[in-house]
Amino acid sequence: MKTMLVTGAYGFVGRHVARAAAQAGYRVSGIGHGTWTREESRAWGLEDWRTDDVTLESLLTYGGAPDVICHCAGSGSVGFSMTHPQQDFSRTVVGTLAVLEFIRQSSPQTRLVLPSSAGVYGQCETMPISIDTPLRPTSPYGFHKKMAEELCQSYARNFDVRCAIVRLFSVYGIGLRKQLLWDACQKISGDELEFFGTGSETRDWIHVDDAAGLLILATEHASAQTPVANGGTGLATTIAEVLGLVAGQFGASVPRFSGRSKPGDPTHYQSNIDEALSWGWHPVRAWREEIGRYVDWYRDGAP
Amino acid sequence: MKTMLVTGAYGFVGRHVARAAAQAGYRVSGIGHGTWTREESRAWGLEDWRTDDVTLESLLTYGGAPDVICHCAGSGSVGFSMTHPQQDFSRTVVGTLAVLEFIRQSSPQTRLVLPSSAGVYGQCETMPISIDTPLRPTSPYGFHKKMAEELCQSYARNFDVRCAIVRLFSVYGIGLRKQLLWDACQKISGDELEFFGTGSETRDWIHVDDAAGLLILATEHASAQTPVANGGTGLATTIAEVLGLVAGQFGASVPRFSGRSKPGDPTHYQSNIDEALSWGWHPVRAWREEIGRYVDWYRDGAP
Repeated sequence: MKTMLVTGAYGFVGRHVARAAAQAGYRVSGIGHGTWTREESRAWGLEDWRTDDVTLESLLTYGGAPDVICHCAGSGSVGFSMTHPQQDFSRTVVGTLAVLEFIRQSSPQTRLVLPSSAGVYGQCETMPISIDTPLRPTSPYGFHKKMAEELCQSYARNFDVRCAIVRLFSVYGIGLRKQLLWDACQKISGDELEFFGTGSETRDWIHVDDAAGLLILATEHASAQTPVANGGTGLATTIAEVLGLVAGQFGASVPRFSGRSKPGDPTHYQSNIDEALSWGWHPVRAWREEIGRYVDWYRDGAP
Repeated sequence: MKTMLVTGAYGFVGRHVARAAAQAGYRVSGIGHGTWTREESRAWGLEDWRTDDVTLESLLTYGGAPDVICHCAGSGSVGFSMTHPQQDFSRTVVGTLAVLEFIRQSSPQTRLVLPSSAGVYGQCETMPISIDTPLRPTSPYGFHKKMAEELCQSYARNFDVRCAIVRLFSVYGIGLRKQLLWDACQKISGDELEFFGTGSETRDWIHVDDAAGLLILATEHASAQTPVANGGTGLATTIAEVLGLVAGQFGASVPRFSGRSKPGDPTHYQSNIDEALSWGWHPVRAWREEIGRYVDWYRDGAP
């Protein structure tokens, strides 16, 4: 039976990866922060769960010799990286180093998949963004994700660690209790209708189940050449369009925009997903329907 | 009186920077590994010397609020990075983060100069190498130097830390007890005349006093745009030419080459130094004469 270790499996992407991997026939274990009961972790596909920092020491103790590691642990917030850059670095860059060192020292046959972020691209002039676009991150979050990618490339090149990188765009889905959709539901349900920015900013939304499927497929493409794929849908959707949909479902009026932008937030995102398509992957979830389900879930009390 | 903190001031480049800064009118303090007497550190221009790790904590305790930090601490060996990649990362990347965090948290007016390395360029096809050449490092050492640069760019962009980066090529000079010239003196004086490689590899040799002068000049150009300069002479010299000079001075015959290369070692280096020239800097030490002095020093017992 194939085995997969999911770091950060308590997190939003991590738990969906764990469940999808279990459904795909892996025996899945997890390590990271977060406390849940055995029933809860089982429900997310995890045979074993270890609450611990993701360090070389904890991996040497509990990591075993999995066929695959999907390293979902790490920072997930541009805002946090602006206020706590050192901690953001530690979570994203030092954590990735620990996983790579673990593979080099103890489990060289393990393949590694790194969920990276569209934040590595930064402010791009040409859309859609292909994987060959020069990386010019803006926020510390984007810089640190880029550095995590570079560590994979270094270990692949120098120590034959087999890696694959998936740059995720705007991942969403039921259960995500942060970022734009969550904040929008909170504000609109409280009759607040003013948002940052102009509304014409675009994001490329990818449902978490589509993202998890791509990450699991990426394990088959991991190699010392460190292939990279964009994880998006290839569609650019304006913030105004998304928030209009959310507001409409609440019966609220059309959202307003302050015209001011958040520091570190690039204006446009739209992915070129040729690489992922060449692997045989394609996104199956439609954003209008899935955002509708997300708002329903929120209005049901976000159970 | 202007003040400069030199991290890693016990090291080869660091001590020359400290002395040159003192001669340029700075009050110089130092922190890093290495033990020397008060007389020794004074002779290298240091008013204060603190033996300690370069961490955020040690900098908050002993760093003060210098006008300038020249961050010379960090790893200096491709070979070490191949056998100890995690420690190399810690010395180079985590150490640079500590300095940047110290400036952000405690001393935002401090300007930072980072001595980086030609190793960030990796295997280049076109010579000379300009600062706009895409960075494709090969060894962990090169990757980690690149990541240290990126941290400077992130802190400059996001937190207005004023930085300048100098990518040093092959720094040499009396006192350097490692790398090609040292190894060559040891081997040739022991009648060993076979060396790695083909001999046709090129390096761009820069004398440590020229390098120190450029690093001190770079402090005046540090800004939130993080200017980069190459620190070389613009001359490509073959390994065969350098080793022939060394061997001749020992009265030995012409060195032989194995034809095998060291892993992680790029073949050719020659710098484009337009940026440094535009700052008003130019190298003054001639390599034939200085390598002659180096061999004389070695033959005097490397005092």
